Amino acid sequence: MKDRIIRVNMKTLTVTEEALPEKYAAYGGRAMTSAIIADEVPPLAVPLGPENKLIFAPGILGGTASANSGRLSVGAKSPLTGGIKEANAGGQAAQVMARMGIRALIVEDKPEDPSKVYTLEVDTESAKLVETPELKGLGNYDAVDKLIGKYGDKHTALVTIGMAGEMGLLAASIACTDRELRPTRHAGRGGLGAVMGSKGLKAIYFNDEGTKTREPVDKEAFKTAARKFAAALLEHPVTGEGLPTYGTNVLQNVINEAGGLPTKNFREGSFDGASKISGEVQHDVILERGGKVAHGCHSGCVIRCSRIYNDKDGNYLTKGPEYETIWSHGGNCLIDDLDAIAVMDRMDDDIGLDTIEMGATIGVAMDAGICDFGDAEGAIKLLEEVRDGTPLGRILGSGAKVTGQCFGVDHVPEVKGQALPAYDPRSIQGIGVTYATSTMGGDHTAGYAIATNILKVGGFVDPLKPEGQVELSRNLQIATAALDAAGLCIFVAFAVLDKPEAFEAIYEMINAMYGLNLGPDDVTALGKDVLAIERRYNEAAGFTNADDRLPRWMYTEPLPPHNTVFSVTDAELDEFYNFMD
Amino acid sequence: MKDRIIRVNMKTLTVTEEALPEKYAAYGGRAMTSAIIADEVPPLAVPLGPENKLIFAPGILGGTASANSGRLSVGAKSPLTGGIKEANAGGQAAQVMARMGIRALIVEDKPEDPSKVYTLEVDTESAKLVETPELKGLGNYDAVDKLIGKYGDKHTALVTIGMAGEMGLLAASIACTDRELRPTRHAGRGGLGAVMGSKGLKAIYFNDEGTKTREPVDKEAFKTAARKFAAALLEHPVTGEGLPTYGTNVLQNVINEAGGLPTKNFREGSFDGASKISGEVQHDVILERGGKVAHGCHSGCVIRCSRIYNDKDGNYLTKGPEYETIWSHGGNCLIDDLDAIAVMDRMDDDIGLDTIEMGATIGVAMDAGICDFGDAEGAIKLLEEVRDGTPLGRILGSGAKVTGQCFGVDHVPEVKGQALPAYDPRSIQGIGVTYATSTMGGDHTAGYAIATNILKVGGFVDPLKPEGQVELSRNLQIATAALDAAGLCIFVAFAVLDKPEAFEAIYEMINAMYGLNLGPDDVTALGKDVLAIERRYNEAAGFTNADDRLPRWMYTEPLPPHNTVFSVTDAELDEFYNFMD
Repeated sequence: MKDRIIRVNMKTLTVTEEALPEKYAAYGGRAMTSAIIADEVPPLAVPLGPENKLIFAPGILGGTASANSGRLSVGAKSPLTGGIKEANAGGQAAQVMARMGIRALIVEDKPEDPSKVYTLEVDTESAKLVETPELKGLGNYDAVDKLIGKYGDKHTALVTIGMAGEMGLLAASIACTDRELRPTRHAGRGGLGAVMGSKGLKAIYFNDEGTKTREPVDKEAFKTAARKFAAALLEHPVTGEGLPTYGTNVLQNVINEAGGLPTKNFREGSFDGASKISGEVQHDVILERGGKVAHGCHSGCVIRCSRIYNDKDGNYLTKGPEYETIWSHGGNCLIDDLDAIAVMDRMDDDIGLDTIEMGATIGVAMDAGICDFGDAEGAIKLLEEVRDGTPLGRILGSGAKVTGQCFGVDHVPEVKGQALPAYDPRSIQGIGVTYATSTMGGDHTAGYAIATNILKVGGFVDPLKPEGQVELSRNLQIATAALDAAGLCIFVAFAVLDKPEAFEAIYEMINAMYGLNLGPDDVTALGKDVLAIERRYNEAAGFTNADDRLPRWMYTEPLPPHNTVFSVTDAELDEFYNFMD
Repeated sequence: MKDRIIRVNMKTLTVTEEALPEKYAAYGGRAMTSAIIADEVPPLAVPLGPENKLIFAPGILGGTASANSGRLSVGAKSPLTGGIKEANAGGQAAQVMARMGIRALIVEDKPEDPSKVYTLEVDTESAKLVETPELKGLGNYDAVDKLIGKYGDKHTALVTIGMAGEMGLLAASIACTDRELRPTRHAGRGGLGAVMGSKGLKAIYFNDEGTKTREPVDKEAFKTAARKFAAALLEHPVTGEGLPTYGTNVLQNVINEAGGLPTKNFREGSFDGASKISGEVQHDVILERGGKVAHGCHSGCVIRCSRIYNDKDGNYLTKGPEYETIWSHGGNCLIDDLDAIAVMDRMDDDIGLDTIEMGATIGVAMDAGICDFGDAEGAIKLLEEVRDGTPLGRILGSGAKVTGQCFGVDHVPEVKGQALPAYDPRSIQGIGVTYATSTMGGDHTAGYAIATNILKVGGFVDPLKPEGQVELSRNLQIATAALDAAGLCIFVAFAVLDKPEAFEAIYEMINAMYGLNLGPDDVTALGKDVLAIERRYNEAAGFTNADDRLPRWMYTEPLPPHNTVFSVTDAELDEFYNFMD
């Protein structure tokens, strides 16, 4: 399959195809989306205006036989942060795009008539826009149902937005269908669903009929490296055992015991109810009800942290909510009801909302007295407001920062406008460095210091002390940017950090795939390149070191139970980008 | 009267007095508020958090016999812009404070119990906080009525916030009573009312019994200079004739004819209905109904642009709405009903809202389809939502930027988060430089280029061309910062720009007042100092040149009738602060 770049103009409603420019030849995933944004989107563009572009790109190893290579990067200038954004999703879209030869799909400009919604149909030969008024206003589940009704379920992968994206809400996500064609895998963070909505694009239908796994230049070498890689993932205790058995929510008890579980809108570091909603409990509930554990969110996944969560009657409700979702709608709001949290997960997926942003937002709303802490029914009603687009829903759907502004709250957990995830930086200092310095705003996946601070993967750096945290986060952020470019799931990092052969296998697979001769330094260089592209873009958009800070109260309000504050100094944070020229 | 600094701690509920530090001896007004913020408020403080401080300061010439020296500066870190803020108000507070020897009043920290509201009582001897639950939730008019009932109307000046400030809304203003003890003179911009509200401070009562006009060191020299100054104001056609006769709304026809009246949320540059709501019409309506023209908003004003506007039955409704208010609630929303606009002016004053921010916000809301353009009744209902603190009201009361975010609008007229005022920079390029570069965010008073671009005061710079606009705005911003420090009304600038003796008189009055020997260069140096303090503060808060830009669409969407875009280049804008080291 020839490499393709598909360019969709939503003003002229035309689709064109371009050859892959030489300068993007080595790029994929986040490297591709960030490079195109830097090249084509003015840093001061209005995020929901015609100058912004929405870019989808599978990774360098997407569509190959490599384990866990099916992550999709979605990029744009973020309406939430005002900076560059890559939001990363599982599901089938990336594998399918890659097999179809699509290295990037660029959506630009806006329709003349903002009331119309369109679906982009893409197959191996062509791509075209069709007006689909029947999808307007639908949630992701209904939209996907209608699309499957139209296109069938064979060779189908779908990308959709829900009501939140159509409304242009800053917490809006973009949904990708999983292997069961359910819209459960989201490019969640940064409001990219609002960018898609602003362009009138409700859905993308990929039909990969006639495609097959991408063929490497050197098949034998690829097979050897891919086996080595998969074996390392299966051997590591986190990726081979913890994640398949308990899913990401294996962290619930771990982070709670570490005193780093943000509780009651980041006012405490542990939650009495955590054990009731832990990964262990979730595991048993899922199996009792005939759900699934050890489920892969995309084909080729060997870690299988996904799961399928049924309701009390044994009917499908949602995918197994992730740790971050269970935290955000759970301890952060003092809610310890797993079924209520699963309902909210389903609602977030359906409305098309980032579960982290929404849980953090509801925490802020509870702080403002809109709803009581611990009131699960009240929290569900708040999500209904978002779904219905009421004024209150518009506030909440605009995320934690705007909600704090509208209700005069002075205790809002956000960096660069994006809500902080499920790890309090006062107890886990390394993740605070990532929150502060990431080009993405408050984000944990950009440099998952939990690995080394808490799980003792890749060594150990004391989570309560400032020493070594900047270096830890920097190394992780560089490595993660490279993994995101490769299209690999972030969880492969557990094996990569502990097992040299897992890291070797990655560049060996890329070499075998493309006939290259990369070494470990080239991987690091790629990660640095990606971060530098993003950092420069953000600088041009007006970001400075002053934006690389946690909220002031994290420096002054000690967090129980350790009663520590965030203590990495500004000067240390300002050394983060010392690898840039 | 000895110079006093009053420091009010809202956490401990204590008031202390300090001598004026030597380093602030030459400061007043905006120089004082900005210097104290720079010294005492961390640039990354949460604006509604305990670290922010709210500072009130009369000008260097406040309380003297100088004409028009009664402007009050109110400063804080702005919750609307995130940068330093000085909002400037008429009314009686500054004259009274100055006569009482109060050079600055600093309000810091926050009460333990956020449900309580307090009044600060200040007389010539002491100051104390009293809890005043009876004021909670009241609009400014009712609050002032209650306070007059308690304290009487002799020697009384009041500073209050309405519901908006109590709710912490980003468009909340701080009201100062005028000579008739009506809360009509507002420190409007930047949400300082929310800062006051966050501190639980509902009102300040000043009792100036026993004070008199401040005595100059050299009485004779002062008298001579003050006479020269007043004479220049009375002789100039703008300050001696246009403003007293027609008020600031004399500009309605002028700016409309210049094609620079932002119409329909800044989509057009002239408004068919402008002549129906012009200063000339307003003048006749006021006189027919027994209102007042040529009214001074504070004692010592010789320009008297204020007026009193009665309703159809001849009963007091509000002060004569200013040009910017009539524009914001008028042409910007396609409303040409003067009485409806006057009702909104009254509501803004009562709820405690910046009229510019609110009109711009309603324009954005109309663009989002919340209410039809031209629907005056609908617009009034939107203000009722703000007053009542409904979710929609919370959105609108958070200003144009947040409203645009919540409703997905990509055409929002704001710079640094603050709504743009009544002059479209595509037709009046000089004011665009001020909007872009001012430390205050989108603001016209910081460097009123209209004077030279349109009114041909201080020379003429072609409003449609980029040439000379940066220099014009720079000179005006420097001069204005000095006037704001002096406590002089910005309108004295018309005379100062055209009449050398008016400028001389200013430093001659300061010299005579304090026994100094300043020359013209010292005035300019003071203005530069103030701007440099503010610029450095904003830099530390994370602002860069990238923030000194107009919205992108002002560079790409030509404005009828001239069909021009904003054409001052980024490189020219970046030269603005070339006077700083």
